[in-house]
Amino acid sequence: MSFFAVIMAGGVGKRFWPQSRRATPKQLLRIAGEESMLRMTVDRLKQVTNVEHILIVTNSEQEEGIRAEIPELPMDNILIEPEGKNTAPAIGLAAILVQHRDPNAVMGIFPADHYIEDGDAFDNYLHQGITVAKDMKGLVTFGVIPSRPATGYGYIQYHERTNPDEPIYAVKAFAEKPDFETAQLFLNSGDFLWNSGMFVWQVDVILNSFKEFLPEIWDSLNNIRGAIGKPVWNSVLTVEWATLRSISIDYGVMEKAKNVFVVKVDYAWNDVGSWDAVHEMRNKDEAGNVSRGEVLYHNAKNNLVLSEGKTVAMVGVEDLVVIDTKDALLIIPRGQTEKVKDLVDGFEKEQRDSLL
Amino acid sequence: MSFFAVIMAGGVGKRFWPQSRRATPKQLLRIAGEESMLRMTVDRLKQVTNVEHILIVTNSEQEEGIRAEIPELPMDNILIEPEGKNTAPAIGLAAILVQHRDPNAVMGIFPADHYIEDGDAFDNYLHQGITVAKDMKGLVTFGVIPSRPATGYGYIQYHERTNPDEPIYAVKAFAEKPDFETAQLFLNSGDFLWNSGMFVWQVDVILNSFKEFLPEIWDSLNNIRGAIGKPVWNSVLTVEWATLRSISIDYGVMEKAKNVFVVKVDYAWNDVGSWDAVHEMRNKDEAGNVSRGEVLYHNAKNNLVLSEGKTVAMVGVEDLVVIDTKDALLIIPRGQTEKVKDLVDGFEKEQRDSLL
Repeated sequence: MSFFAVIMAGGVGKRFWPQSRRATPKQLLRIAGEESMLRMTVDRLKQVTNVEHILIVTNSEQEEGIRAEIPELPMDNILIEPEGKNTAPAIGLAAILVQHRDPNAVMGIFPADHYIEDGDAFDNYLHQGITVAKDMKGLVTFGVIPSRPATGYGYIQYHERTNPDEPIYAVKAFAEKPDFETAQLFLNSGDFLWNSGMFVWQVDVILNSFKEFLPEIWDSLNNIRGAIGKPVWNSVLTVEWATLRSISIDYGVMEKAKNVFVVKVDYAWNDVGSWDAVHEMRNKDEAGNVSRGEVLYHNAKNNLVLSEGKTVAMVGVEDLVVIDTKDALLIIPRGQTEKVKDLVDGFEKEQRDSLL
Repeated sequence: MSFFAVIMAGGVGKRFWPQSRRATPKQLLRIAGEESMLRMTVDRLKQVTNVEHILIVTNSEQEEGIRAEIPELPMDNILIEPEGKNTAPAIGLAAILVQHRDPNAVMGIFPADHYIEDGDAFDNYLHQGITVAKDMKGLVTFGVIPSRPATGYGYIQYHERTNPDEPIYAVKAFAEKPDFETAQLFLNSGDFLWNSGMFVWQVDVILNSFKEFLPEIWDSLNNIRGAIGKPVWNSVLTVEWATLRSISIDYGVMEKAKNVFVVKVDYAWNDVGSWDAVHEMRNKDEAGNVSRGEVLYHNAKNNLVLSEGKTVAMVGVEDLVVIDTKDALLIIPRGQTEKVKDLVDGFEKEQRDSLL
């Protein structure tokens, strides 16, 4: 058996406008550290498997940027979705390609744009998940112990411990992003974890789940599988893809399947969902300011200021997020940065392509 | 008799950083309207006299920008101070050059960077001042009726009305920029006016005042006068200038002279002393925002945002001043913009020439 790591890198990360654009999505930005989020994800996975076993699922707009960012990745290891159809079709596509390379493979699914501080702990929990995937033919998720009533994450409810020596639990239910009151209940209950969006399973097990719960997608995947390595690949993929419905793996498979487990992980994890998260996780000066570029602070505290070459003077202001790029400047208070997505949705609606 | 208008254009206007720089001082900025402050001042004076009678006193750093801004000004009508020595020496220099052209001239002194909305009212009051200068051999100031206890202006106290038909008063005293309590007293007293920094006098009258109150400057001016139109002009000017002390016309002459009058003017006047003043005087949108360039506001009010080509998104912020230029970005709350001068003083101290 071999282990394949599939990185999901199709999103734009609208909340990181104006840095995130169609050609420079969130995972290519250096927002969590001095490397891009994708580079950090790939490097983490290279501790677990070799680069020939790392696949990246993305779209044609991002392909060039990703190849430039991860030049060591084999050409064939970038899978281009003809269009975004949420996670289930993308995972199904990756599964048939992995199966083609090794029918006995275990595969893991990893968001390109999450931050995990401790690579060794990650490695450790991942291997526990691989064991469950193999020994119990499980669909394995990874749940983070919640530290606050977050409304931005989905939750996983677990019930019984599978093995007293390991932090592996059977999953009772999945919950979508809750409102604040519900999140508070989840936090108090003690049996809810944050859904980290990572999964591990045997490739035959996940494909059987597609057959059972998403049969029409499974049919399309079979058609696509028949075209692997043939000249018709692109046209078959495009035609079949157009027929697929958009559906998440959580909703399409995980919530319906029986053999679902969760590895309860205890490491610093952050999905870096907004500029607020960037301020939270980055190193601060004594006044709580986080900066990139030359920023001069005078009586200014708890700001996040990212500049590309320009000198920024922040005088007498606090709790501001200032993101300056070549062609756009965003100013928004900390605590409101979720709203950046609405702003960018507005640009899309108004077809302001130069801002997207 | 002819009327000469002398525009004082030597300042940098540090409070308008990052737009104001050594080569692009406040008076060349379009901060009070769609034209530069200098252009507005020149155009206002062209209603009173012809351009051959308009002189601009400045320094070598600003010369090129001023010539480009006012191309119709005769070459010889720009006077270059070898170095800044406050207003008295600059006015003395202008006076001997005006006297050389017309010994009977009346001359007026006008800051390059003040805003006066009503050109006709300005014209009217100026002619009243010219009459007083001629008929009473007066040193004439122009005082603005105060609307609030401003601490940023000098004040003029007047006592008796000279002519019941005209708003001309004898001056009792000059007061430097007061603290807030004093400014409140001035406002309540009813006999204090804002010193607008404009003056009118006969050229022989002001030069006699130099002789009386600033005899050592008068001596230097006589030496400089002897070099007018000669090859030694530059060297004489430079040598004499180096010996002069820095002193303002208010302190050096006006506070000591007896024949001082004030024209009480009643028009919208603003010395545009800071970015706050710019927000105050410019047209606002319904949310109280003032903008140049493409600025998108979402739940944002009472901001001043000046951008040079870049799209700026202001989300959920209020009372902010955002000045974006090619190489520097300033963010400061409204009400604190006086502090910009301290920032620039700091740059000078640290010899950060690229920011000056």
